[in-house]
Amino acid sequence: MNKAFTLVSWTVFIVCLILSLNLKAQSDEAVLKAVYKTSLTNGMSYQWLDYLSNTIGGRLSGSTNAELAVQYTKQELEKLGLDKVWLQPVMVPKWVRGQKEMGYFETNGQLNKVNICALGGSVATPNGGLKAEVLEVATYKDLEKLGEESIKGKIVFINKSWEQELINTFQAYGGCASERYRGAAEAAKFGAVGTIVRSLSSRQDDYPHTGSMSYGDLPVEQRIPSAAISTNDAVKLSEALKKDPSLKFFFEMSCEKFDDVLSYNVIGEITGNEFPNEYIIVGGHLDSWDLGDGAHDDGAGVVQSMDVLRLLKESGVRPKRSIRVVLFMNEENGLRGGRKYAEVAKEKGEKHIFALESDAGGFTPRGFSFDCSDLMFSKIETWKPLFKPYLIHYFEKGGSGADIGPLKNDNIVLAGLRPDSQRYFDHHHAANDTFEHVNKRELELGAATMAALVYLVDKYGAETITDQQEIKD
Amino acid sequence: MNKAFTLVSWTVFIVCLILSLNLKAQSDEAVLKAVYKTSLTNGMSYQWLDYLSNTIGGRLSGSTNAELAVQYTKQELEKLGLDKVWLQPVMVPKWVRGQKEMGYFETNGQLNKVNICALGGSVATPNGGLKAEVLEVATYKDLEKLGEESIKGKIVFINKSWEQELINTFQAYGGCASERYRGAAEAAKFGAVGTIVRSLSSRQDDYPHTGSMSYGDLPVEQRIPSAAISTNDAVKLSEALKKDPSLKFFFEMSCEKFDDVLSYNVIGEITGNEFPNEYIIVGGHLDSWDLGDGAHDDGAGVVQSMDVLRLLKESGVRPKRSIRVVLFMNEENGLRGGRKYAEVAKEKGEKHIFALESDAGGFTPRGFSFDCSDLMFSKIETWKPLFKPYLIHYFEKGGSGADIGPLKNDNIVLAGLRPDSQRYFDHHHAANDTFEHVNKRELELGAATMAALVYLVDKYGAETITDQQEIKD
Repeated sequence: MNKAFTLVSWTVFIVCLILSLNLKAQSDEAVLKAVYKTSLTNGMSYQWLDYLSNTIGGRLSGSTNAELAVQYTKQELEKLGLDKVWLQPVMVPKWVRGQKEMGYFETNGQLNKVNICALGGSVATPNGGLKAEVLEVATYKDLEKLGEESIKGKIVFINKSWEQELINTFQAYGGCASERYRGAAEAAKFGAVGTIVRSLSSRQDDYPHTGSMSYGDLPVEQRIPSAAISTNDAVKLSEALKKDPSLKFFFEMSCEKFDDVLSYNVIGEITGNEFPNEYIIVGGHLDSWDLGDGAHDDGAGVVQSMDVLRLLKESGVRPKRSIRVVLFMNEENGLRGGRKYAEVAKEKGEKHIFALESDAGGFTPRGFSFDCSDLMFSKIETWKPLFKPYLIHYFEKGGSGADIGPLKNDNIVLAGLRPDSQRYFDHHHAANDTFEHVNKRELELGAATMAALVYLVDKYGAETITDQQEIKD
Repeated sequence: MNKAFTLVSWTVFIVCLILSLNLKAQSDEAVLKAVYKTSLTNGMSYQWLDYLSNTIGGRLSGSTNAELAVQYTKQELEKLGLDKVWLQPVMVPKWVRGQKEMGYFETNGQLNKVNICALGGSVATPNGGLKAEVLEVATYKDLEKLGEESIKGKIVFINKSWEQELINTFQAYGGCASERYRGAAEAAKFGAVGTIVRSLSSRQDDYPHTGSMSYGDLPVEQRIPSAAISTNDAVKLSEALKKDPSLKFFFEMSCEKFDDVLSYNVIGEITGNEFPNEYIIVGGHLDSWDLGDGAHDDGAGVVQSMDVLRLLKESGVRPKRSIRVVLFMNEENGLRGGRKYAEVAKEKGEKHIFALESDAGGFTPRGFSFDCSDLMFSKIETWKPLFKPYLIHYFEKGGSGADIGPLKNDNIVLAGLRPDSQRYFDHHHAANDTFEHVNKRELELGAATMAALVYLVDKYGAETITDQQEIKD
């Protein structure tokens, strides 16, 4: 009888265990379903992005628009009934484009206007513009062998083409980015008077694409103006140079750098009800370049991150850990916001276990890349089947996001949302990065996908490299 | 010595076997790499689509544009050095929209213009238009319980909303399509004088979306005009009806149906060098609706299919089996081309082993759906890892394509390209289905993905339901 009772007890226990495990699994599925449904039928991200893009517009660090965006997003977060919303002060650079740039090349007595824009951080041309002969190179790395005699007094035209065969367009971008960033500094060393860089774009069109550049430790008096030229005009210029190597290029830019100004990261928090001192953050960057309205880069990441907290609340999730949305200031030309957030977190000894950034456009989400221990990655991979109904398939180790990078240590998992990348660099840093190129459903699917991952990390915690060490020990 | 020799022989044999298997695997990887690279760096699909969309334009069956598209695609296929290119005659319906439609509703003495368009196949309104009170229903299925007394003399407004929470937008479309197709026939039975159907669109905007409708076996004199209304105007009309249930709706349409006319499927073939009597076909439909230029539906499928044969040739693939590109006429309002192709194939006793259709827009490809035996599907699944570098992850059993449907039998595998579906129904059958909404890389990735699958089917053959039966027996 006793034995039979034990058998019955055990059977009941095992059945209960199976049921509870099953319920637990079902419950995750139900939460994800609620999160996606809420985002697609009752999301706020698209409406917020409309305001940020169309009412405010481009939000370059230090600009009035950037400050309007700080105020707007703070107010909107305050409406969500979070536990805390605050501004985190940070000093940011202020660079101003000035009057619209002008450029042309002159061959056989004909002027051919080209579409150019100053690279972010560039100095202006001399008043009245700059005209010189052009030396075309495929990369600034060729300058060394060409030497000062070929370069001195000329405008260096860096015409590195985009590797279209790469499936992930971020890889192609990575292959060209240093041309834009370092080209002017390298050319100046050999006496060049300016640089023109082929736009980092996946498309042949007339838009010049700006982006940050640096003079490194080059003395102020040696700095030369640097502009991007549209891909169509890069082709035209290159063809004209083949026929007339001594053609002259003219450009005029009035951009200017001012002293740093005060700005803010915008932060909202739902305080955890079990482990309030463990922090999970989700974010994007509030600043953008000034040519378009920054809808994809990174208005999308901002509004998706804001909606993550709202979607969790609306779906009835009560987080165990503290979940913060962080809208970083100054990713584009300084990363000051990201650095400041990490600095303050360190000062306060806040234990951040997970950070997720969305900064690759508001396109259909495909998955995430993770910067974490193998142990954590294998844990995350067990969640992959939960995402299958939403066509989220990409879970790979790799980079995360620029703003959350400064948080990196052995105790945090960093992750980046990975949307479909095909169209991103058609718009990136150009005048056509605008609201009408964001699709509502694609944006909302991204927000839901981020919320789903945040929910799972909050529920199941994050193993860190330290844990892994402990297990090995 | 002898034993040792045998051992050495076996070792050599096994090593060779492993190497050859490995080489074989590498070779598939290399072919896929070449196919994708060729499409992304030297594809023709975008250029062809530009001509088809911008120089020719919308290609409704029976129109001059449809015939221009037949001539153009035939000429372009002839330039590719295929083994055969020909036209397959087929009689198609000819329905003409006539003058742009006009509609408004009248409430409190105010006229409110709305954006409408005739559904394909609709009769015209009486000359001078039609004005009547409106009865709003969520679906035509509600008509039966409302009965003739509520419906007679009215315009039935079918206002079924789109299920935004469905991830695959084709499912949401499927949930509404019968409202458009059958609504008028059902409403006419109860004495309605016209129907207005909310556009089948995933977006709130001002575009009305056309599409085919049918009167079934309703006698000619009982047929009533049927129009689509934009989603924005459907909301406005519904709100106005709540305030003023007796408001009047007016619309005027001059569409007309003519006798069938002669048109063509366009076919090109690379004849197989090992099994020339086994056919693999890849296709899309050459006709489109008339409001836009039909770039996504189905210009994209047409040019991708054309480029499949070219990409295989350019990548050095010599097919074992005969591979045909088939550009079907009249998918939108008759499916005559698809039926004709299947009819002729049957008459000639041509053994078709595989048919692939692209008719879901030129968006980033995610994979394929297959209509085939379990045996074949498990074979296809072994190819999935080859597609991983191209982010192709979706291999599921399901539907294929309308035009290849009539080929269905136990001996053929049918498949459909499955691109990302989020944006498709923003454009489908509307004036904004235009070339500028197609992204070059997304289109080219689709062509490469189709070519890759065709290459694998050609190389490894297709198991059919009959094979499976034989294995079971």
